[in-house]
Order: sequence, then structure tokens, then C-alpha cells
Amino acid sequence: MTRYVFMFDEHPNPSKEILGGKGYGLAVMSKIGLPVPYGFTITTETCKYGKDLPEDVVKQIDEHLIKLEKSSGKKFGDPENPLLVSVRSGAAVSMPGMMDTVLNLGLNDDTRAGLAKKTNNPRFAADSYRRFMQMFGNVVMEIEHDKFEKELNTIKNKHGKKLDTDLTTEELDEVIVAYRALIQKERGEFPTDPKKQLRMAIDAVFSSWMNPRAIAYRKLNDIRGLIGTAVNVQMMVFGNTGETSGTGVGFTRNPSTGENVAYGEYLLNAQGEDVVAGIRTPHPISVMEKELPDTYKQLMDVFHKLEEHFKDMQDLEFTVEEGKLFMLQCRSGKRTAAAAVRIAVEMVKEGLITKEDAIMRIEPNSVTQLLFPQLDAEDKKKFEVLAKGLPASPGAAIGKLAFTAEEVKERVSAGEKDVLLCREETCPDDIEGMNLAKGIVTARGGMTSHAAVVARGMGKCCVCGCGDLHIDAATKTISVGSKKFGPSDFFTLDGSTGQVYAGKVQVKDAEVSGNFETILNWANEFKRLGVRTNAETERDAKKAREFGAEGIGLARTEHMFFQGTRIRAVREMILSENVQGREVALAKLLPLQKGDFKDLFTVNEGLPVNIRLLDPPLHEFLPQTPAEMEEMSKEMGVSVEKIKVLCTNMHETNPMLGFRGCRLGVVYPEISRMQVRAIMEAACEVVESRADFNFKGVEIMIPVLAHMEEMKMLRELAVGVANKVLEEHKLTIERVPYTVGVMMELPRACIRADDIAQYADFFSFGTNDLTQTTLGYSRDDAGKFIPLYLEKGIYEKDPFQVLDQNGVGELIKMSVTKGRTTKPNLKCGICGEHGGEPSSVEFCHRVGLNYVSCSPFRVPVARIAAAQAAIKEKRAAK
Amino acid sequence: MTRYVFMFDEHPNPSKEILGGKGYGLAVMSKIGLPVPYGFTITTETCKYGKDLPEDVVKQIDEHLIKLEKSSGKKFGDPENPLLVSVRSGAAVSMPGMMDTVLNLGLNDDTRAGLAKKTNNPRFAADSYRRFMQMFGNVVMEIEHDKFEKELNTIKNKHGKKLDTDLTTEELDEVIVAYRALIQKERGEFPTDPKKQLRMAIDAVFSSWMNPRAIAYRKLNDIRGLIGTAVNVQMMVFGNTGETSGTGVGFTRNPSTGENVAYGEYLLNAQGEDVVAGIRTPHPISVMEKELPDTYKQLMDVFHKLEEHFKDMQDLEFTVEEGKLFMLQCRSGKRTAAAAVRIAVEMVKEGLITKEDAIMRIEPNSVTQLLFPQLDAEDKKKFEVLAKGLPASPGAAIGKLAFTAEEVKERVSAGEKDVLLCREETCPDDIEGMNLAKGIVTARGGMTSHAAVVARGMGKCCVCGCGDLHIDAATKTISVGSKKFGPSDFFTLDGSTGQVYAGKVQVKDAEVSGNFETILNWANEFKRLGVRTNAETERDAKKAREFGAEGIGLARTEHMFFQGTRIRAVREMILSENVQGREVALAKLLPLQKGDFKDLFTVNEGLPVNIRLLDPPLHEFLPQTPAEMEEMSKEMGVSVEKIKVLCTNMHETNPMLGFRGCRLGVVYPEISRMQVRAIMEAACEVVESRADFNFKGVEIMIPVLAHMEEMKMLRELAVGVANKVLEEHKLTIERVPYTVGVMMELPRACIRADDIAQYADFFSFGTNDLTQTTLGYSRDDAGKFIPLYLEKGIYEKDPFQVLDQNGVGELIKMSVTKGRTTKPNLKCGICGEHGGEPSSVEFCHRVGLNYVSCSPFRVPVARIAAAQAAIKEKRAAK
Repeated sequence: MTRYVFMFDEHPNPSKEILGGKGYGLAVMSKIGLPVPYGFTITTETCKYGKDLPEDVVKQIDEHLIKLEKSSGKKFGDPENPLLVSVRSGAAVSMPGMMDTVLNLGLNDDTRAGLAKKTNNPRFAADSYRRFMQMFGNVVMEIEHDKFEKELNTIKNKHGKKLDTDLTTEELDEVIVAYRALIQKERGEFPTDPKKQLRMAIDAVFSSWMNPRAIAYRKLNDIRGLIGTAVNVQMMVFGNTGETSGTGVGFTRNPSTGENVAYGEYLLNAQGEDVVAGIRTPHPISVMEKELPDTYKQLMDVFHKLEEHFKDMQDLEFTVEEGKLFMLQCRSGKRTAAAAVRIAVEMVKEGLITKEDAIMRIEPNSVTQLLFPQLDAEDKKKFEVLAKGLPASPGAAIGKLAFTAEEVKERVSAGEKDVLLCREETCPDDIEGMNLAKGIVTARGGMTSHAAVVARGMGKCCVCGCGDLHIDAATKTISVGSKKFGPSDFFTLDGSTGQVYAGKVQVKDAEVSGNFETILNWANEFKRLGVRTNAETERDAKKAREFGAEGIGLARTEHMFFQGTRIRAVREMILSENVQGREVALAKLLPLQKGDFKDLFTVNEGLPVNIRLLDPPLHEFLPQTPAEMEEMSKEMGVSVEKIKVLCTNMHETNPMLGFRGCRLGVVYPEISRMQVRAIMEAACEVVESRADFNFKGVEIMIPVLAHMEEMKMLRELAVGVANKVLEEHKLTIERVPYTVGVMMELPRACIRADDIAQYADFFSFGTNDLTQTTLGYSRDDAGKFIPLYLEKGIYEKDPFQVLDQNGVGELIKMSVTKGRTTKPNLKCGICGEHGGEPSSVEFCHRVGLNYVSCSPFRVPVARIAAAQAAIKEKRAAK
Repeated sequence: MTRYVFMFDEHPNPSKEILGGKGYGLAVMSKIGLPVPYGFTITTETCKYGKDLPEDVVKQIDEHLIKLEKSSGKKFGDPENPLLVSVRSGAAVSMPGMMDTVLNLGLNDDTRAGLAKKTNNPRFAADSYRRFMQMFGNVVMEIEHDKFEKELNTIKNKHGKKLDTDLTTEELDEVIVAYRALIQKERGEFPTDPKKQLRMAIDAVFSSWMNPRAIAYRKLNDIRGLIGTAVNVQMMVFGNTGETSGTGVGFTRNPSTGENVAYGEYLLNAQGEDVVAGIRTPHPISVMEKELPDTYKQLMDVFHKLEEHFKDMQDLEFTVEEGKLFMLQCRSGKRTAAAAVRIAVEMVKEGLITKEDAIMRIEPNSVTQLLFPQLDAEDKKKFEVLAKGLPASPGAAIGKLAFTAEEVKERVSAGEKDVLLCREETCPDDIEGMNLAKGIVTARGGMTSHAAVVARGMGKCCVCGCGDLHIDAATKTISVGSKKFGPSDFFTLDGSTGQVYAGKVQVKDAEVSGNFETILNWANEFKRLGVRTNAETERDAKKAREFGAEGIGLARTEHMFFQGTRIRAVREMILSENVQGREVALAKLLPLQKGDFKDLFTVNEGLPVNIRLLDPPLHEFLPQTPAEMEEMSKEMGVSVEKIKVLCTNMHETNPMLGFRGCRLGVVYPEISRMQVRAIMEAACEVVESRADFNFKGVEIMIPVLAHMEEMKMLRELAVGVANKVLEEHKLTIERVPYTVGVMMELPRACIRADDIAQYADFFSFGTNDLTQTTLGYSRDDAGKFIPLYLEKGIYEKDPFQVLDQNGVGELIKMSVTKGRTTKPNLKCGICGEHGGEPSSVEFCHRVGLNYVSCSPFRVPVARIAAAQAAIKEKRAAK
């Protein structure tokens, strides 16, 4: 018989998969002797039944309820000593705020009276009853939250009360009567039998797994493969029984900076929902040391034990009931990338974890956050701080103001790029809009409010609880004192300080230093893959080298053709009707290209540089519009008609599959000759510039290759020119090493990799074009169906972002195997955009590539991902 | 020591590769005892030395010259009994007229006197000497032919003579003097030592292998892999020693019709060059029976022995010297496709060869000639025959008149399609123009003239020796009696009758019957591959069935969308903004498509029909030009602006890789639903139309598929609709069998073939698109580089015409293997245009496809090719 229900301390091998994250935390804390209110967990395996729990499960629940009554010494429905419980969801992966919770379950008119008597606090009992009815009515009986709020406000207004806490016991009784009537009207009688309440609540939690909000959350956060949520039934403890009670959330370290100090917030005389919902602004946990010194000591002890046990920063919920501490939840805490890095590094130094663990703790994509531009310190001084909130999620964000999540969606899909979401407070429904906004600012809520938690998860800049902002969504205005701002005004947010500026403050690039540098250096100790960068400008190459790039994996020479007046020479070449004419024009381009290459070689002293010969079809260098044609006509002294004819003649139906890449070199070898000469002259000149110049080698790459014969022909051409230049400079290939290889970006090249390897010194997989041809998708046109394809699950991820390992990946694997059959040490790399995407990097490691190459800002991501791939492999081999 | 020289009867294993075609024929004829003048062959292996023959070879030549002198009883340079020889080239593959020949070698002043004395014919000796000097001067010493002709004409004019034969011995002596002076002036002294003459001639023949004309010929005729030409040195026999001498060419059967009667032409008192060059019009060989009855009998005996030996129709050259027959050459005779078929069939009936041999004798591509349209007999009656020549190569040709090969090239490259080449006589330099012309007509020359031989080789309609036509290339006119025609006039040629018409006679389709039908039926006995057709109209489907197609392999439903007013409904669908609107428009298309499908099913009763769902991007159905937009605007009642916006929105950068094929079905499932419904309703209705209707099954094909999930989704859709229609008609799948499969045309589909086969009932390789994506070539754009690629030998053949077996073929092989891992009996076919190309058909056989599908007119080609593939396999297994 499958066991579906476990007391917190009963499961022999607690796991998140079976008990859910919350149940797992409670089980572990119970086992290591921390103060946890008694309770039991109904496993995630039960979720599949939804509302139709089998007899067997119901029986197990009943049995565990009896155990719970026994442990707690309280009884369900007992007016003398009533057992009240919370019913909470908890899946293996945290989905904050996404599923439902019911507190104070077990109350009815009788037990409420008993509670009042037992606590000697009738108002507390009434308030608990009122809260329970509202939660139960909303979550379990599915009556809109607003309807309860309306009843509550009516009664508050009637009595001239502002806050809920101002209401007296009698007034709360009025609320209870009103709620009962509301429930009766909307759904029928409010259930008074605690067992019935429990069963209904359990059913509701299991059902909430499939509610649209939860489904959307899983999709957005790419949470897959879970079998469902567990349900935790736990004896209530009360933080709202007076001034020696309270509730709070804590982190064992600072989740924003990673600093090793206890962090968190609490409210005296409150229940947990008051903190999470951000309705009252709580106190920092440090204040607790003065207010409840004993409890604070107990709590710090718990923090310490938990870190010792989990070897990771923990996120906790606790309640203090009349001075006594109870732990309600613990889990690995979400953190910013900066915090993740600092915590990982410091835990290594503290001896808690190994360097390998530290690297495995970092989500590679998250480190791009650390490369977020920061506000320029100098420019910032020119602006006055408009308001200050909590630094909830770091980075800088600049944008115009939007007042609802829908507004963000509409404006972004209409083409606006920089939009900030400004809300009194955010709620789960806002997630999509938060995702699309550049940054988030809220007027209410603390560091653990919904906005703060979600924004940190998204790596998005957020300032919270910025009370000076008066946000009026209805009129779309924000007023700060006498100043008013609307949808067309810009704000600048500093997520690291919580400062808000009116206008646009300048930003500057980030640097790699401190803990981040440490962890990246550790990554280098483990990774096997080289990490290079795709760059052709001196600026990008420098930046990438700062980020740890080990050379250039792809320099796209044609990018240089567009700069300044060069396009004129390019067009002159295209207009030429014979080789001689083309050679005259090419001669003008040669010194310009050479200059660029010298810059690249200089920046990459001691590192290899890969330069790709001309790739795009020549018509890309021609004007597109009549105005541009007119301009070209004037500049080149050629009639507009001639230009039009040229454009028409050169037009291609499918330029992606057209006259480009090495085909240009085969038909117009003079172009390739010029480029190889420019490369080799540049190489010789940098070598000649300094006797000790460490020239590591240049890789000349032939693009869009399909056939061995193309490779053979162009290799001969390249080697011929290169050796001639070396001879002219009286330099040897040992001093100026060069190789000639191929950009593997067509299926045919992959299929014939063994042939091609005969003439190629290296393979570099151009996975952008290889994806286009293998899948038959034009990147420019696939937007019309790819989104729907992702929605329908045909592809799990956009194959242009995440390598299609089953399709394109198979071709890469085949190529590497075949290529190395011919040349066992064939150097293989990847230079498509997938080279900076973690799962694709792992793939590249697995199939034995030598390096990945990606854009400069992805270099740190790739370094972490490469190290993780190596560590995973090592661990799997054990 | 390698042996480079062999007497004709010396080689133990004569082969064309070593002895060349001519040497091989001479060797075989010598061995089987036919009258062959003595001589020896210098092997093709010697050709690599060009003019620099090693000592060793020279020594062997000298030794064999001595043997030749011994056998013939004559001596080089002996004034009493001089040995004269011919020196001829001869490669393994016949290259008529492409390389050089020297006759009468060995003559000088002394031997000429001896010859005169010995033959008692001073004029003959003088003429032979004159001819030798001219040939040697031209071929060996490389003095232009025209310069000799000029000298000859000067002397003819001086003496008032018209023909060469009118010249007296004395006058010929004047020519000899003039020739000697010409040679002296141009190149220095004329060599008088016969050994020196021989050595120079051998060098010239070996060099001629690499002359531009020979290289161009090999390229045009796709002759590859030969190591060179051999040289044959053979004792001269003379057909020009008087009226009991003569020379001729013969075929053992009629090369034009295949009829089993001796065929050929001869001239009395002439040398071979007179016949081949077409300068004098020769007599049919049948006339010889009266003129030289004994020799004729000998010749017929030779014909018989040769067919017995070679089991094939032979092409022969012979000379009669004073009544004695000498065989100078024999080889398999070139023939028209009709002749090839008839000869093959009749030889089987005669017991000479087997059915397998017969099939292997047919060049599959050549049979398209038999499907050439013929002149419509009724329409022909309305025209008067303008002139009648020889039916040199069959078929019908209609075109405007061009007067030089260059003119044909210019006009065709300027876009003209139907051009006839009209020449007094053609020469080797005309080959390119002949290839581009629709047909060829000459005023002079017989059935074995250059024009006739080359045209038959090309399968091109040709009328020869049409003496009534007075062709004036200088003024570009043809006059026939008083009628004059120029470059803008049309002629119609009937290559089967030799008739020439002024104007355009109507043509009609060919039929499969007689011997052709016989051989195609034999092909069916051997072939393993099915042969289907690509067709969507009733007319094409019928035609294909007549040609033996075993069902439809590809019906492109979108072709039906363009017909008549249907485009209106298609556009209505595209304009619709929602599913409902699209469904309304689709409902209008449904009955039209259904009608088409019923026609296809009816024509293909008893055969399978494969129907592909919509393939092209929808924008292909929108107007392109402003005028068409205007028209559509009026017709649809939609503003031109809206249409323009639509066209802009739907425009694709690379439509080949765009929103097409099954992607349409995934995004707009209503389109696929309509098409499947139309298919299944059509199927049900034909089945309901007749109780005994033999419905063999419909294959619903999903195009442009990349991912198993697409297949799964669309299979579910198709099966859902299909079963619903069956239910509505109360019919079972046993009565109306249907399957759902995939068009394999993307590399990813091939790589994942094992996954896809889970949901696919069949694979059909769409090699057009598979070639585009695998090679990265857009068929529409590749014209800019493919010709140069072929020229440089990067690809041997245009990969869009001949399957790229190493690239695309590997993917096909992989797919079949993977697909059949999942489903061992998976049906696999090909429906790209390669399905009718013989070498590709052979590949399809080898990789185990079940069928090929091609355009109707390629069906007979594919049947022959499929049978040959099976026979080759069987023979290789032995």
C-alpha cells in the first residue's frame, strides 16, 4: 500500500520530490530538533487525484489527524482546547504566492469561543475567525477577495475605523455576520465541521496546482517535470496574540548582497500573511534583538544550525507565540547574482562547501546581472534624488512610467522598449508585465514583498516600499510632493541603493572584480572548454578580454566594410565589370582592413584570433531605398538607373541560401586574396612592431562551405597568399603562425566532415546558419510561427537561442567524430550565438569541442557553464 | 618493361582502354580473320608523354615499323615499292572528328614517282601526294586549312577547272609546288624523310588530345576518366585508284530506325575523308550490290561476322582497293533511341542477346526522344513540303532561322527559345550552337555527315543534305526557288521523314507502343523500384499512366489553388482575420479540391495516390505588381492600401525557409482540416460511385516537416478528420485505405527519422528542397555560381539535376536506415525531380527505396533506369 501521509518527523528519507519544498523543510527541521509546530504532509504523489481523493488516502489523513491531536494535546472541534491548523501547498520547486494557503482552520462558533476563553483574548479569537472565514471563503469556496474587502470596509466606515486592528471584538462580530451572509448568498452554507473544512481545504490546495496563475508561473519560470504539490497540515501557532507574539521571515545571509549577517523582517502581533502581502511595513530583524532578546538568540541559533545542515543560505518563516519561537518553513533562499557569488565564495572560505560546490551554486545566466550597467557616479551627482525606497533588486533601470501590468504589455508590444512598472504593490497577476518592464518600483512592501522576491528572481532592477511616491493608477500620475509625472516621463531606478531619479541618468559598463572574479577564476580551474569571444572592434575585444575571453572565436570582416567611407570602396568593387576593376577597389580596402586586424591582434596579444572571410551576399552593400540610391549615384558618379539595374540583377529570392560566403571567394578569388593579404600583413606588422610581441596565431576561416573542393581551392589560395606575405616580410610561419579552417554551418559540410578535414586545420560550428538550414527556418521569418511552436511544445526552447541538441546537435556530433577520424587532434569550436547559452555550452563540452565563442557579455556565463559541465561530468563518472 | 606498341593481332587481351576504340576494333577484326590492312597501335598509356616520347617508346615504334614492312612487303621510302601509312587517333570513347588524322604518310618526290610507276597511275600518285602535303601541313605543321585551299583554288581558276578531280597530273604538280612553297614560308622545309614524317605525325596526334576542340567535346559529352588517345599506324589502301576502288561507311543495321538491313554509303574512287566531310554526296550502300557485287558479298559477310562477334550493331569504315575489301574501323554504332530500342528487341528475338542485355543497351535518358512530340498528321496536310532532305535524326523541330552557331548562341542567350541552325554543312566548331538549337538543317552531307552523327548523338532533330535549300550565311537568307526566308521566319523540320515546311506545323504527343512498349515491359520484369509520377491534373495523370506510372507519388494541391476563380477564395482566406473567416473561405475551396481529387482517384483506379497538403507560403497567392493589386482590390472590394499592407506584412526575407508547409497546418489547422476532408470525401465518393471501384489507397503527405511533434500533431488532425468522414459515409478504412506520412525535405527530419517514423506511415524524399537546405543553395539564386562550380569541377553535375549522392544521398540513406529501425517495413520513396534521373534512380534502388516518382515524361526513363539498377546489382552479386 502506498503511503501518502507522513508526520513531519516520520519520513525515513525526506525529499522535496515527495514532500514538496515546504514539507521537506519541516521534516528536516523536525528531525534536527528545531522547534516546529506538529503536523503532517500529504505527498506530491497525491496531487494527481485532484479533488477525488481515494478512500485509502482519506483514511490515512484521518489517522494522521488523530496522531496530530495526540501530539498537540488539542482536538478538532473541541471547544475547550481546539486544534486549529494551517493548510498549505508546497511543490518541489518554490512558486511563491502561486498556490493557496488557509490559516486558522478548525474555527467555528464553538471553537472560537473556546479559543477566546483559552487565550483570554476574545478580540484575538474574533479576528482569527474573521480571517479564517475570509481566507476559506476566498481560497476554498472561490468567492472574490474584493467582496470580503467590501463588507469589511463598510463596517469600518460605519464605525469610523481606519485600520483592521482598530476594530473591536463587537465590530469584528459584525464582520463575521456579514461574511457568513456573503458566503451563504454566494455559495451556500459556511461549513462548521472542522473535518469537513479540512477536507475542502486539502481539495482546494490540490486543485490550485492546475489554476491558470500557477500554470502561467511554471511556464514563465520554465518549471517542468513536477508531479504536483504536496499539502502540509500543521498546528496553528499565533503571532497575533499580543505584543510578545509576532511573525517574520528571515534569511541566514543578506539575499541582496550576500553579506553574512542575519537578514529579515518581522511584525509584532501579526500573522504571516501580513508580512508577505506587504500591507504593513515590517521591522528589520535586527530590531528584534532589543524587542525580544531571548527569542532573537534562539532564532540566531536556528539560523546557524540550518546553515550547518544545508550548507547554504536559508530562507525561513517563523512565528513567535507568546515568546516561544516556532519555525514554519525553511528553504534555500533566492538571491541576487551578486549575493549568490558572495555567498558561494565566502562559504568556501568558511569551509562549508568546496570550490566545486560554489561553482555549481551559480546559475550561469544570472551572472549577466553582474555585468548590468551601473549608474554613472559622476552623472548621478547632477540629479536630485526624487525618492528613496528599499534596494530590492540591483542594477539600473531607465524608462517611461506605466501603471499596470497590462499597460506595460500593450506599450511593449506596440514597440516601446524602456518602460518601468510603477505599482502601489504588485500581485501575482502582474508577473508578465513585470517580466516585460525594464524595472519595477512600488510604493509599499518590504524586501520580501512580492515585487522584491519576483524581481530578484527575474534579475530585474527593483525599488520597493518607496513611500514618497503617490501612485495613482486611475489617472496615470505619480506625485512626489508638488511634482507630478505621467506616462511620458522618464524615471531612473538604482536597484542597488533604492534611489529614484526623475529623468535619465547616464550608465556605465560593469567590471569583473572581487568575489565575482574569484569564482570566475575558480571556474577556469575546472573547465576544459576554452571560452573565446565574437568581436571585431577593438572596444569589444578589450571588454571581452577583461571578462576573461581566451581569444577571438569569430571576427566578422564584413562588419568592417560598413564603417565610414569604406562602403564607397566596397560599392566600387561591386560596380566593377572585371577582375582589374575589382582589384583596384579592393586595393583601397586592404589598408583599412589591415588596420582593423592589427588592432585585434594587439588587443589579443598571446591569444588566438579567428578571422572569417567575407560572408554576406554583395547586394547587402547596395542601397535599399530610392533616396539611398540617389545618394550613391551622386557619390559614385553613376546613374541611378544603373544602380537600380544592378540592385535588380543582384536581388536574391533567398539571400540566406544565395551567392555568399566561400562562393564569393570561388567566383571572385581576388576578394579572398585581398582579405588574406590584409590579415597576414597585419600579423607581420604587429610582429615586426616589437621583438617580444607574443603572436599566438591567426585562424583564417572560410564561411558557408558545403564541399571539400571549395575548401581545397580556398585553402590553396589562402596558403599561397599567406606564404607570399611571410616571404615579403622575411618572417617564418613559426613566428607568425596561421591556420586555415572552416565555418561549419551547412548540413552538407557536416555530412562530409571527414573529407573536409583533409584540408581544414579547424572546424568552427556556425550554429546560427546551421540551425537555419537544418531546421529549414529563416531566422528573419520564423517569428511568424516559432512563438506558437513554443506554446504548443513542439520545441521546448527557441532553437535560435538554445541549441537544438537532437537535430543540429546530432550534426555537430557527427562532424566532430568524422573530422577527427581524419585528423585526431582537429580543433573544434562553436561561434554561433549558442556559444554563450549554458545548456548549449554543456552540450559543447560533452561532444568534445575545444572551445566556445560568444559575445563579450556572455563570456563569464560561458566560463561558469563550462566549469559546471566539467564538474557534472566528473561527478557523474564517480 | 612496359609495352607501348602492338601489331593489330598481337595484343593478348585487346581492350578499348589500352588500344583505344579504333585500335580495339582493328585488333578484334584482325584476330577473327577479317581483311584488315597491316598496322600497329601505340597505346593510350603513351599519350601522357605528349610530344616527348621516351627513347624506349621510340625504339618500340621503330621495331614495329620493321614488322609492318615485313608483313606488307613494302618499305618506308622505297621508291620501288613504297610503304605508305595512315596515322590516326583513337581514344577509348569515340570523339568523331575531334582529333587528327594523316593519310598517305611516307610520300616524298621519290616514293611518289615509285607509286606512279607501281600503280601505273601518275595522276593518282600526284593527287595522293597533294593530299598528303595538305593534310600534313595542316594537321602536323599547323598551317591553316584555308591557306591550302586558296593555293588550290588559284590554280583551279588559272586552268578554268571547277572540281579537284578535273585537275590533270601537271596541274596537280603545280599545286604541289605551290604547297611546298607555302609550307616553306610558314614553317620551314617540308620533311621528306618518311620516318621523320611518321614521328611528327605521331607527336601531333598525341598533342591533339589536349587541343581546345577536343577538350570542349569531352566536356560537352561528359567524357571523363580517359587517360588519352592511342595512335594507329596502318598501311594505306587506296579507294581512289580508279573505278574499281572506293571507300565507304556502313552500319550493320539502320542507325536511325534500327531496321535489320545493311546501311551505309560509299563513293567510288574516293578516300575516306571525302565521305565523312560531306563534300560529295555518296551513294547508298545498296547500290554497291550492282556496282561491285563480289565486294558487296564480302562486305555483307563481314557485317554478319561482326554482329555475331560483338552482339551489337556495328559502325564500320572500309576501303575497296581495286576490287579488294579492306576494313579500316569497326565500333558499336551510334543510333537513335528508336533504333536502339528496335535493335535491342530484335536481337533478343534473334537469340543474339538476352532481355537483360537488351535493357542494359538502352541509355535511359535517350528514350525521352521517343516521347518527342511528332508533327500532327492532319495539320501537316495543310502545309506544302518546302524541301526534302535526309531524315538524319528523328523528332520534330520548329524555330526561326539562324545561320551560324554563334548566331544561335547569341539569340538563345538573349532569351529566344526556338531557333534552328541552318548550315551549308556543319563542322566540329559548331557543336555548342547545335546543342542550343531546337533542330538542325543542312544543305549538304549524308546520313553519316558531321551534322547527322552529332545530332543523333544529341537526340536532336536533324534534316541533312537538303539540296533544294540555298543557304546564304552572309546575307542570312535561305532561298528555295523564288521564295526567300530570313532570321524571323519559322521552319518546321520533320526529322523522321526529312521534310521541311515553311511556318509552324502543329505537334502532338507521342505514344508508347511497339518495340518501346516491349522493352518497357521487360524493364518491369526486372526492376524492383516502383515508378510513380508527379501529377495533379487529370491530363498529366492519364499521360503518366499511359507511360506506365504505377500511381501518383506527388500531387501538389497548391497548383490547384491557382486555377480559374479559385484564387479568389484563397485570397479571401488570407484576408480573413480569424478562424471563422478562414473557415468560410475554405468551405468554398473544399468542393473544388474534392473535384480535382476525384479525377485523380478515377484516373488512378487500382493505383496508390499520394497527395501533399498545402506547401508554399501564403503570400505566393497574393498579387505582385501594382496592377495586380488594383485588380485584386476591385475583385475583392478591399482597398489597395490594405492589400499593400498585407503584402508587406507577409513578405519574407527567405520564403524558402519561411512560413510554409506543415507550419501552415500547425498555425492554421483549419486549412489542413479542409484539405484532408476534401481528400477523404473525394475518396468516399469515388468508392460510392461504383461497387467494384478498386480504390487502392490515398497517402496524405505532410510537407516541410522538421520535428516529430509536428508529425504527431498533424497526424492526429488528419486521422481525426479522415475517420470522421469515413463515419459520415459509413465506410471502413479497409474499403477506403488511407495513410499519413511525411515529405522528407529538411535535414532535421532526416536526422530524427527514427522519431518521426513513429507517427509516419511513409517517407517520401523531396530532394529539391532537401538539396537546397543540405547544400545551402537557393535554387532560384544558385544560377549565379553553379555554372562556375561545374566548370571548376567542385560538383561533377548540377546537384539540382543529378542527386548529390555524397551529401544529400547520405542523409537519405541515414533516414531510411533510421526510419526502418522504428518501422521495418516503412514505405520510402522519392518525389523530387531526381526521381527521373537515371543515376539518381540507381541510387534510390541501392539504398532500398520502394519507389521513385517523376514527371510523366520521365516515367519510361525511370523504368529503364530502375531495371538497369536491378540488373547491375544482380550481375555484381555474381
